[in-house]
Amino acid sequence: MRRGPQETVGPRRVTKSSPRCQHAGVSGPAASTVIEDFWAVVPAGGAGTRLWPLSRAGSPKFLHDLTGSGRTLLQSTWDRLAPLTGPDRLLVVTGRAHAAAVRGQLPGLDAGGALCEPSPRDSMAAIGLAAAVVARRAPDAVVGSFAADHVVRDTGVFADAVREAVAVAREGWVVTVGIEPTGPATGFGYIRAGVPLDVPGAPSALAVESFVEKPDAGTAREYLAAGYRWNAGMFVARAEVLLAHLARELPELEAGLRQIAAAWDTPDREQVLDRVWPRLTRIAIDHAVAEPTAARGGVAVVPGRFGWDDVGDWDSLTALLPEPAGGPAVLGDPAAVLALEAGGVVVPGSGRTVAVVGLPDAVVVDTPDAVLVTTRQQAQRVKDVVAALRAAGRDDLL
Amino acid sequence: MRRGPQETVGPRRVTKSSPRCQHAGVSGPAASTVIEDFWAVVPAGGAGTRLWPLSRAGSPKFLHDLTGSGRTLLQSTWDRLAPLTGPDRLLVVTGRAHAAAVRGQLPGLDAGGALCEPSPRDSMAAIGLAAAVVARRAPDAVVGSFAADHVVRDTGVFADAVREAVAVAREGWVVTVGIEPTGPATGFGYIRAGVPLDVPGAPSALAVESFVEKPDAGTAREYLAAGYRWNAGMFVARAEVLLAHLARELPELEAGLRQIAAAWDTPDREQVLDRVWPRLTRIAIDHAVAEPTAARGGVAVVPGRFGWDDVGDWDSLTALLPEPAGGPAVLGDPAAVLALEAGGVVVPGSGRTVAVVGLPDAVVVDTPDAVLVTTRQQAQRVKDVVAALRAAGRDDLL
Repeated sequence: MRRGPQETVGPRRVTKSSPRCQHAGVSGPAASTVIEDFWAVVPAGGAGTRLWPLSRAGSPKFLHDLTGSGRTLLQSTWDRLAPLTGPDRLLVVTGRAHAAAVRGQLPGLDAGGALCEPSPRDSMAAIGLAAAVVARRAPDAVVGSFAADHVVRDTGVFADAVREAVAVAREGWVVTVGIEPTGPATGFGYIRAGVPLDVPGAPSALAVESFVEKPDAGTAREYLAAGYRWNAGMFVARAEVLLAHLARELPELEAGLRQIAAAWDTPDREQVLDRVWPRLTRIAIDHAVAEPTAARGGVAVVPGRFGWDDVGDWDSLTALLPEPAGGPAVLGDPAAVLALEAGGVVVPGSGRTVAVVGLPDAVVVDTPDAVLVTTRQQAQRVKDVVAALRAAGRDDLL
Repeated sequence: MRRGPQETVGPRRVTKSSPRCQHAGVSGPAASTVIEDFWAVVPAGGAGTRLWPLSRAGSPKFLHDLTGSGRTLLQSTWDRLAPLTGPDRLLVVTGRAHAAAVRGQLPGLDAGGALCEPSPRDSMAAIGLAAAVVARRAPDAVVGSFAADHVVRDTGVFADAVREAVAVAREGWVVTVGIEPTGPATGFGYIRAGVPLDVPGAPSALAVESFVEKPDAGTAREYLAAGYRWNAGMFVARAEVLLAHLARELPELEAGLRQIAAAWDTPDREQVLDRVWPRLTRIAIDHAVAEPTAARGGVAVVPGRFGWDDVGDWDSLTALLPEPAGGPAVLGDPAAVLALEAGGVVVPGSGRTVAVVGLPDAVVVDTPDAVLVTTRQQAQRVKDVVAALRAAGRDDLL
């Protein structure tokens, strides 16, 4: 059995099965069984500029149905987490500009379930605030953070992975879900795993040796051969464990978040938020907690084999869509698309007819005020379009 | 000196310079001097389906500014012909649906200058009707037909070619303008010229041995090497000569046109038109008159070295537009186009921003109800889009 480091906030030694909760007495598949001490945190931010012109600052990626499922990415995130938490332990952290849209898309969201950030302060502040709020409501709670704009194919397998992660987190670990790579991607960070942990209820959990940055293509192939996994930014930990790690690494940030959380359910919330929030350090949870804690031997990983994608650009989105024989994938009304010897993806989003001829690899995205034409290969360059529009002062299109 | 065949309607033998008109006493360049016995006929028909979605049945090619000159193709045709005819000897033959648009674009057009066809009956009926109407107004007139939707670069050189053609036509020839090819095009018919004619005022006129159909690529190269010229459908002849040839080849068609022309300036016009027009043979002037008359030795050609294009598709249109360094040609507001590593042509026609990334050969045409995305290489296939839309009953887009 792997033992965590003997430090204050590190994982406790696991000596026996120690279930902190009993599963609710619901019959049916495990995937739909609530985990009583588990809270989900969904950071819903980021404009998704590489999915312009569909994704905009005012209507970012997570608010769109990008898979043709009939549900937006945010709604699909809700759909796979709410069965694990119930509606009252699912928190969405979002900007004030999107709070109404989030509530509109998630009618089941608890009244206190939307945490509004006054301004973007990166993922550590967003997740840390949620953890601090949760810690006051349920001191022993395990929190798990899952982005609002990722795609998961197999919800049942996802739920099983979360269950494993929660079981490990209860023992004091910071747990990440390591995505089984499908290829030598250069757009994701990787996780290098170590020895098995043998935590009860988490047979496949391993210690994490380190997180590694997005590699170049050659390095990515080496990582794949060495069994590294993709870092999907999913972190599961007891709220108090997460905050203790943060307190060690960035005590002022932790203190600020605790201060806001203390005022959260009082009339002072807005006043404290406005005073404290703008001074919080902007940092990703990866750099603030995950990497330093991994270096101290406090991070575990459970494998994610549920089919995952961050839908980073039009190319990866296209790969997620069913591609009809001899034609492009269509995200929207197929009757609005006329394709001759064309492939790729067409997004008819303005009501007008889109005709594509002789482009096997097309990306055509039609919206009421802008149309994008590129290829799947060039899809990464869409962020340059957004940058150029910003430089040109065309904020109306961003 | 080449002599025309000794038949009734063939060219007369030219024995001396026989100017039928004196140039008006206008000082200035020859290009702006009216040719007193010359009438221009401009058939303004054809939808230009390969220029969809800009060109539509309701708003065909000739009504659009396709060169970014600020003038539509029809207006540019007027601009180069009206100085040769004056406003009262320029006739536009168009469909009833486009008469108002034609008058709107050509405020200088004479009240009797728009001849409305009740229905399309191909070029022989259109030009023949105009010739028959002209023959009644001015029995010795020379008529020249010039499509409303072609592009001519050098108006002065064009005017000189027309002057030559008129000089030859006065002698009884049917005269065509043979375009100097710029390459082995397969989209045009060709003209095989014979011996010089030595007509006064037309030093470069040659007899035509035959018209040949659109060739394949190999044949086109042979034609180029043999000095063949492109047939741009420009025909110049005395109205009575043209009608006499037609009477020989298709007497019923000629009689029908004479019948309509006799009623044209009377209250019976519409009634006769409605009765006679629908029964007229649908045939191109090339097949009805030009080819059989060439076979009889009655057709001449003067060279056209003025830079010509029929703007047949988006590829040829792109070649006509100034292409800015490192970007696509833009037909419309350049501020509406954002291009990164893109070339070809972009037509922003709906007020929206069009972003094109990584397509060196793009054709992107944005209109309020349809957007076309293809490449210059595939531009010919646009007619298949139109066919598919027609088959799908989408007449609203045609």
